[in-house]
Amino acid sequence: MTSAIAPLQINAERLRADFDALSQIGTTGDGGVHRPAFSEAHLAAQAWFRDRIQSSGLKCCVDAAGNHSAILPSSQPHAPTLMIGSHLDSVPHGGRFDGALGVVIALEILRTVRDAQLDLPVHLEAIDFVDEEGTHVGHLGSLAFTGQLTSAALTFPRSGRSLLEAGLQRAGRSEADLLNAKRAINLAGYLELHVEQGTELESSGTPIGIVTHILGKCSYRLTFKGRADHAGTTPMAQRFDALQGACAFTLAVRETVLQEFLNCVANVGNLHCYPGAFNIVPGEVIVSLEFRAMTQSQLDGLRTALLHQAEIAAKRFSLSLTADLLYEHQAAIMHEHVQNRFRQVCERLNLSYREMVSGSGHDGQSLSDRCPVGMIFIPSVNGVGHSPHELSHWHDCVNGANVLLQTTLLMALNR
Amino acid sequence: MTSAIAPLQINAERLRADFDALSQIGTTGDGGVHRPAFSEAHLAAQAWFRDRIQSSGLKCCVDAAGNHSAILPSSQPHAPTLMIGSHLDSVPHGGRFDGALGVVIALEILRTVRDAQLDLPVHLEAIDFVDEEGTHVGHLGSLAFTGQLTSAALTFPRSGRSLLEAGLQRAGRSEADLLNAKRAINLAGYLELHVEQGTELESSGTPIGIVTHILGKCSYRLTFKGRADHAGTTPMAQRFDALQGACAFTLAVRETVLQEFLNCVANVGNLHCYPGAFNIVPGEVIVSLEFRAMTQSQLDGLRTALLHQAEIAAKRFSLSLTADLLYEHQAAIMHEHVQNRFRQVCERLNLSYREMVSGSGHDGQSLSDRCPVGMIFIPSVNGVGHSPHELSHWHDCVNGANVLLQTTLLMALNR
Repeated sequence: MTSAIAPLQINAERLRADFDALSQIGTTGDGGVHRPAFSEAHLAAQAWFRDRIQSSGLKCCVDAAGNHSAILPSSQPHAPTLMIGSHLDSVPHGGRFDGALGVVIALEILRTVRDAQLDLPVHLEAIDFVDEEGTHVGHLGSLAFTGQLTSAALTFPRSGRSLLEAGLQRAGRSEADLLNAKRAINLAGYLELHVEQGTELESSGTPIGIVTHILGKCSYRLTFKGRADHAGTTPMAQRFDALQGACAFTLAVRETVLQEFLNCVANVGNLHCYPGAFNIVPGEVIVSLEFRAMTQSQLDGLRTALLHQAEIAAKRFSLSLTADLLYEHQAAIMHEHVQNRFRQVCERLNLSYREMVSGSGHDGQSLSDRCPVGMIFIPSVNGVGHSPHELSHWHDCVNGANVLLQTTLLMALNR
Repeated sequence: MTSAIAPLQINAERLRADFDALSQIGTTGDGGVHRPAFSEAHLAAQAWFRDRIQSSGLKCCVDAAGNHSAILPSSQPHAPTLMIGSHLDSVPHGGRFDGALGVVIALEILRTVRDAQLDLPVHLEAIDFVDEEGTHVGHLGSLAFTGQLTSAALTFPRSGRSLLEAGLQRAGRSEADLLNAKRAINLAGYLELHVEQGTELESSGTPIGIVTHILGKCSYRLTFKGRADHAGTTPMAQRFDALQGACAFTLAVRETVLQEFLNCVANVGNLHCYPGAFNIVPGEVIVSLEFRAMTQSQLDGLRTALLHQAEIAAKRFSLSLTADLLYEHQAAIMHEHVQNRFRQVCERLNLSYREMVSGSGHDGQSLSDRCPVGMIFIPSVNGVGHSPHELSHWHDCVNGANVLLQTTLLMALNR
């Protein structure tokens, strides 16, 4: 087989035409795109994707959550499905590569296999997962696909209920649709190519990053409650100042990670003080906490340590404390077998590679309990991410696409 | 003179009728009033005050800042003016006693003196100072009156420029009017009655509080600047987290006061984090700081200590720091002579009293460099302030009014 596989390459011009056309949908005019999930622009990008699938002669599938797929069926009807994918949505005023590149490459891989008239012993599926970026719920599409989406996540969406409701109406979907979108197909694996959101590859001059872990991530909303008092007439020693507790906690978050969880990160990204006036002692403070770890046991250990610090801070200032888990993305170890396939392909294509940990989240996390998951990164100029200035050189995109194509073939043929 | 002065009392029924009528203007329906400075309701209250002045046969004066006065002239045209006053504006959804009671009592004192046909060797003026509560600029009217209002204060009003502009248009005034409202009259003194915003009088069963000091007060806007970074990919040790600095400072504020400035108070009432997302290291945090001290030297010492703590916190986390003074109300010592007059009158009227420090600000602070200033408090049920539930018993109001009347006469006749 090896000699048959080696020369196969994606059609770089066809890929480029697709990528450039897609970049115009929701363009910000300065190289970026604005395609928050379920916005007009996002739905337009999905419509464009359906059109490209159909005009390529592939089968188009849209599931109950709004995930869009191109399918190249195997001649063996009971074959498992090997999925390749990413996402068409973007953060507000984001870049044109993040997510979109992975989707058009997945589609191109199916077309290349189809053009080569290879009949693989797997169905190939190129999938676009909705709301990877979490305009409403981070990894919404892949969580729905795997049956992990909870109604709690829909009750407290990140941009509020009304935006989610408006978006679902625009997309013609209901919350029940999302909660019942689980697909019980037999998966042979899930592969994704994504731009790096950092400078490791660029600064080391490496074209391919092989992801070994995707960090696990938790978000909590912590509420410190004390008592709002007149700041002119209430002596310091008689106050129940919720902000003092929140600040002691915020400092403890950093110290805890630096001293006990050196490979992890944690962030207090926001504090909301109520009532928030110069002359009133803060009676209530809401803390936005997020933390990430490479393994699930580290994530759980960090959770325990941070929530303990919150209790200490609350107690120190005689405050009450509530901690609400907003979302959790399990830490995911990329499948060793898939990593090895990537290494084999890179060596065969004479492309250098390095192992990397992904600090940002990806849909592969939702799938890693379901099937072997693997992921590669390509370099991003200056490491810019989530910005219209995001840029990857085209030869890096093509190299990445060919690594993914070859790995797809290896996995399909050597299961 | 003494025998002639002793029996004179204000007309409690007439005072009550005025107070009840005024309480209906901008009523919140649950006992409170909503009369932010230059709102429709506030302007309606001022129009009502003009009407009451004119129907009482007193002279009405409105200055360039919108302060409204009733004047009972002395037969001696070059006599100094003894002012009595308070304010008709309220905090949003505030109480009906705060400020308004002091204004109607001042008016009633002028009517009582006029009815008794006393020709005093001072002009009496009952004044309503605009925006004591600082909807736009705290003590706006009295600062304008004394020429202390700065254009900087109008550039950064507390509720923003557009609200100030809309309010001034509603009131038919310009910023130039406010900045040129200084009145160069010869002042014999300024007296004010106000409800206590605390429980000292009620819990000790004392009808009259004689204010000895009004705390000096400063507000600062501190900006800690670091760098916004991706919270998933930026190691803890490489962050420039502005919130860490703001939190270290907030804790230091409390410690500094507890350890070195025991008679003072300080408050961080709000923190604003930018961009304020779960997954972004805060690049900039704006801190709302306010602190108060009994004397100006303590206020200055506390300022130095707190700004030093801000520098330490910024340095610790490699942040930049800017500190903007938003406003400063000088600490005011109530005039010893006026305090003694209040004591004399309370003893003569057989009303017990206690000396008190005012933790909240009052217009007397603006005037204490200009003339002898004195202030009394009357009890407030449960110490509730700035709330529709604010309540003072009517007999306490009448007692306070008579103390103020007698003190006015003593000061007018024994200068």
